[in-house]
Amino acid sequence: MRMSYSVAVTGASGYAGGEFLRLAAAHPELTIGALTANSSAGTKLGDHHPHIRSLADRVIEPTTPQRLAEHDIVVLALPHGTSGPIADQLPADTIVVDLGADHRLERAGDWQEYYGGDHPGTWPYGMPELIRAATASKQRESLTGVRRIAVPGCNVTAVSLGLQPGIATGIADPTDIVAVLAVGYSGAGKAAKPNLMAAEALGSAAPYAVGGTHRHIPEIAQNLRAAGAAEVSLSFTPVLVPMSRGILATSTAKLAPGADPVTTAQLHAIWSAAYQDEPFVQVLPPGQWPTTAMTLGANTALTQVAFDQRAQRIVTVTAIDNLVKGTAGGAIQSLNVALGLPETLGLMTDGVAP
Amino acid sequence: MRMSYSVAVTGASGYAGGEFLRLAAAHPELTIGALTANSSAGTKLGDHHPHIRSLADRVIEPTTPQRLAEHDIVVLALPHGTSGPIADQLPADTIVVDLGADHRLERAGDWQEYYGGDHPGTWPYGMPELIRAATASKQRESLTGVRRIAVPGCNVTAVSLGLQPGIATGIADPTDIVAVLAVGYSGAGKAAKPNLMAAEALGSAAPYAVGGTHRHIPEIAQNLRAAGAAEVSLSFTPVLVPMSRGILATSTAKLAPGADPVTTAQLHAIWSAAYQDEPFVQVLPPGQWPTTAMTLGANTALTQVAFDQRAQRIVTVTAIDNLVKGTAGGAIQSLNVALGLPETLGLMTDGVAP
Amino acid sequence: MRMSYSVAVTGASGYAGGEFLRLAAAHPELTIGALTANSSAGTKLGDHHPHIRSLADRVIEPTTPQRLAEHDIVVLALPHGTSGPIADQLPADTIVVDLGADHRLERAGDWQEYYGGDHPGTWPYGMPELIRAATASKQRESLTGVRRIAVPGCNVTAVSLGLQPGIATGIADPTDIVAVLAVGYSGAGKAAKPNLMAAEALGSAAPYAVGGTHRHIPEIAQNLRAAGAAEVSLSFTPVLVPMSRGILATSTAKLAPGADPVTTAQLHAIWSAAYQDEPFVQVLPPGQWPTTAMTLGANTALTQVAFDQRAQRIVTVTAIDNLVKGTAGGAIQSLNVALGLPETLGLMTDGVAP
Amino acid sequence: MRMSYSVAVTGASGYAGGEFLRLAAAHPELTIGALTANSSAGTKLGDHHPHIRSLADRVIEPTTPQRLAEHDIVVLALPHGTSGPIADQLPADTIVVDLGADHRLERAGDWQEYYGGDHPGTWPYGMPELIRAATASKQRESLTGVRRIAVPGCNVTAVSLGLQPGIATGIADPTDIVAVLAVGYSGAGKAAKPNLMAAEALGSAAPYAVGGTHRHIPEIAQNLRAAGAAEVSLSFTPVLVPMSRGILATSTAKLAPGADPVTTAQLHAIWSAAYQDEPFVQVLPPGQWPTTAMTLGANTALTQVAFDQRAQRIVTVTAIDNLVKGTAGGAIQSLNVALGLPETLGLMTDGVAP
Repeated sequence: MRMSYSVAVTGASGYAGGEFLRLAAAHPELTIGALTANSSAGTKLGDHHPHIRSLADRVIEPTTPQRLAEHDIVVLALPHGTSGPIADQLPADTIVVDLGADHRLERAGDWQEYYGGDHPGTWPYGMPELIRAATASKQRESLTGVRRIAVPGCNVTAVSLGLQPGIATGIADPTDIVAVLAVGYSGAGKAAKPNLMAAEALGSAAPYAVGGTHRHIPEIAQNLRAAGAAEVSLSFTPVLVPMSRGILATSTAKLAPGADPVTTAQLHAIWSAAYQDEPFVQVLPPGQWPTTAMTLGANTALTQVAFDQRAQRIVTVTAIDNLVKGTAGGAIQSLNVALGLPETLGLMTDGVAP
Repeated sequence: MRMSYSVAVTGASGYAGGEFLRLAAAHPELTIGALTANSSAGTKLGDHHPHIRSLADRVIEPTTPQRLAEHDIVVLALPHGTSGPIADQLPADTIVVDLGADHRLERAGDWQEYYGGDHPGTWPYGMPELIRAATASKQRESLTGVRRIAVPGCNVTAVSLGLQPGIATGIADPTDIVAVLAVGYSGAGKAAKPNLMAAEALGSAAPYAVGGTHRHIPEIAQNLRAAGAAEVSLSFTPVLVPMSRGILATSTAKLAPGADPVTTAQLHAIWSAAYQDEPFVQVLPPGQWPTTAMTLGANTALTQVAFDQRAQRIVTVTAIDNLVKGTAGGAIQSLNVALGLPETLGLMTDGVAP
Repeated sequence: MRMSYSVAVTGASGYAGGEFLRLAAAHPELTIGALTANSSAGTKLGDHHPHIRSLADRVIEPTTPQRLAEHDIVVLALPHGTSGPIADQLPADTIVVDLGADHRLERAGDWQEYYGGDHPGTWPYGMPELIRAATASKQRESLTGVRRIAVPGCNVTAVSLGLQPGIATGIADPTDIVAVLAVGYSGAGKAAKPNLMAAEALGSAAPYAVGGTHRHIPEIAQNLRAAGAAEVSLSFTPVLVPMSRGILATSTAKLAPGADPVTTAQLHAIWSAAYQDEPFVQVLPPGQWPTTAMTLGANTALTQVAFDQRAQRIVTVTAIDNLVKGTAGGAIQSLNVALGLPETLGLMTDGVAP
Repeated sequence: MRMSYSVAVTGASGYAGGEFLRLAAAHPELTIGALTANSSAGTKLGDHHPHIRSLADRVIEPTTPQRLAEHDIVVLALPHGTSGPIADQLPADTIVVDLGADHRLERAGDWQEYYGGDHPGTWPYGMPELIRAATASKQRESLTGVRRIAVPGCNVTAVSLGLQPGIATGIADPTDIVAVLAVGYSGAGKAAKPNLMAAEALGSAAPYAVGGTHRHIPEIAQNLRAAGAAEVSLSFTPVLVPMSRGILATSTAKLAPGADPVTTAQLHAIWSAAYQDEPFVQVLPPGQWPTTAMTLGANTALTQVAFDQRAQRIVTVTAIDNLVKGTAGGAIQSLNVALGLPETLGLMTDGVAP
């Protein structure tokens, strides 16, 4: 372990890139190197992220693989489909962290179906808490020493963490999951689109990608298969609500066929066991339900679970900050594991509330 | 039909009472009579609802059955369990509209299970658009001339209107419905509770009554049985989001066993047929999804539907203003029907947006 | 007076045009004719303003003077600098209402200084409540029968109505006014700009046009001169706050030199006298301060005043809905006057709250 | 310097106490000792502040001077008027930090006029950046080694930091200052009051304490006198806007009598010089104006200044997080100084945005 690692960030002017920089600036073992972008080259970071005071005067450079390759770590904060070509030009021993979607999916068919085009390939998946049923382990064991990390999607993180204890223990039926998410606007990115304007958002709740079209669906299914599901069917509906950050995922599954009757207390015990050693996934005390405000700015996923005796459904609610645990914080966490650093280094568990 | 009807409102200082007054003040056939309350007696309406300028100087009187009975119409805007005793003291030929829960449920067992205590009885149900499968009619036919109206719950309205076309046509399976609702804070009432404070709400999404405990569940089931369901099972989760008004209900049901395969276009046609003559329930054009802002201040319910081919679930999203179509506007609409007035009198279909 | 007037709206896809249509659709003497726009031609109104259900299927046409001229009334809801050329091509006896800035200012120098280019000319000013000190009258007397109406700016309305009772009575010193406004995002228009994105706006207060550059400054000065000020000096700062609609203007002026000492009660009496016969400008009871929620969707301006004995400043706070009293409602009000209709026809005084 | 200091917090269940705990938990030299409160004794901190995961299981104890006195540092997060009696019972060599108002004011008359009752006394004032004109120094020089710290009011911090460079240089006239602040709801405290409910707050801007009655007025005057003003007159109006945290203070002063003409660029240079060595007060680059989102969760005050040539007024806008730089962060900063620790220890400059 060296004293510090230099990090370059490409896509520095976007929300994911900015959040990585905010966290990296406070990380004791990371040193911020080149910040690059294309259309924003020549401007200062403070023009795009004036909240990041510590880097406000840093000038954004044009993105070139050569410049990026001068660093120990390269973070790709780019639209899907654009990470792959850049990653291909980086040295094999550079640590590359992709905050985008390009390298998350294992099945080329999933990529083609939901994103289109040739699949850029699959990298080690940056969700340390993911249960790997096949090896009775968690994903962090596969992350030590890796040089490529595919950071999970934000909604994916919320739903996967909420449901996997039930899937892994065989209590929850993965063949008819329903998830509805309240999501903040930063999750929709920084491009100025009419439906993302403040005047439209304030006072309104607005669904999108309804009916099974959201690109995070195959990734959730992939995770739940990892956790032990033979087959996954998922109804998934995100709803934009008037907050800047945060995802509150309400996920529900039936009791698995043949499973014994279960109580809320038993489910709470199962969920607690699954996460008892996790620094960043916490099951709240019985009866307390998570809110997104509890996780703002923190790398924490908070979850709670109940069994609805009448509907015979397990209901789990999980809150995260989409830009932290859902993106940049999860990236730092996986990077810590890959580098052999303490997994929690440079990350907060306490949220900024109220 | 007389030229106008006098209306007394008890519970005038609360949100439901205030909204009824806002709408009644603009209704050409209603004249506002006594405003009553208990703890607020002696204050002015403008102290509680300064937005209702046209009635700001009206003084709130103590609630007595005698005073209420001087009017053609009495509106009860009271906490559950308190409407019944007052209603019992009103003349049989007074028109009584209960905005609360006391007289909605048909099964005494449902009342005891979800509310507790003795069931106050069942009144004609104030949802004109409710499909009555047994008589191949809608509920409005049962409302003409009635002297008692039980106004539906706000969440109930959103979920019932969203799902009933699928239930009535036998396309949707009522035995495993999942509904998750984004709801505004006015739906939680005016009592000052810690979790309803602005500092807690802003920037947060907060679930409540998770796991099948919400009191609107048996009422939704009752409506879907009316629409033709033999048996209803419903997982229901409300999530408070940072808006003052509005409910966005995402409701999903499996295709009924034995039903033919279906497309989104076919569902759209079924939903459109169910509501083609309805003034206040509108199916949006294909591909356009409702938001709560579209319905603000209006008596409109907007809905859209899709079929998720992979998940094999029907997904319907319905938006209403909880205080208008979900409470006071629905009450006026049913009152119009009961009085033989045009159903749309004094009600808006256009929302106040952005 | 005919039974109804046909109205064409150009710029129908923007917020001002949409709001005019929402109100006009509910106006008993107006019939909606052509809706026109340039880039949106061929689309439906429901694509842009899905909340206006009653006109959702109306198709937007390309803007041509010929098409507009087929109507009794033409409403221009266009960016500044673009109304003038169209207005020049409309018949002299067509009633033309300009929601934009082109025809508000009386001094060509003000136009050149704040907007640039040639001044499009001055039309009768659509603020019926404006005090005309020179004639001891109000502006409505100048509006009867006019065929051109320049609708005031939204911030202008809030500040002018808040301060003019003090100016007209000589109590308030117009030479050192300070006004700071909390404004909702719809006031910034519908163009998708980065700083107007929901993710940026939520949880933030953001000033703009600080230091005396806002284009509404000369228009406020013009109004206060009309009310009797010899000279006006105004520090004006708007602050965007996370709400869709609304302006809350805090305006303060010193006691005029030589004025007798004054109390809050005396100021309240002066303000009340100024507005006692006004249907849409109301002084709240002593001690009650306006909020923007009280005016949402209504054509009401609510105001309150106090005298700060220590600071020796009059402080007045005025709330309006920027799209109603601040734009489209004010336009309808002036149009009613111009047409000889009741001034309040088709307009609400009660706000949609909470 | 020891390795760490133990801290007790009384009033742990309120917003100020919670925020101090959030920051103290991340501070490398502080160890959290007793958490006390009165009505909340026996509950867990996680019942009140579930976002503070690291302390969620800590039990709140009843407040007694004996228990508090077991610690190196005692933080009082109590309503005004209640800190004094507790402080009187603590040992003289305990470091006591009062987040409340009791020990801020130097003039007993100010206390009596604005708070009423006997003045609890004056402690060293916890604003390290405060300019002390009399000694050509800043307040931090007076804080080293102190055992009592009075933490400034949140609005006070924003207005004082925004204006003092102009006061200290004699450019700004302190005799006619106007300040209007957009403030988030956490600043109003955690007591459940009707006007602080989410349903009331969302979509609304609401002034309070209008007309010179706010208790922060004498404290601002005191600070500006410290910075060199002979006499201060201040019109001060806070406006609650729909955000949880943040203060955006727009403060304006006339050019001092006899001062030379000035430009925005010159003011920027003056402000920059005043804060060039300050870690937590930053003047933004010319033309960039602060927003509250830029400071969320950080101890940063961001400011900008302009000269309005027409109005002849200096306009300065300052943004802070009311709970961090405005309360708990400022407290930690002053505590660092008092303890001889690096002033920035445990504090962030980068805000959590968007």
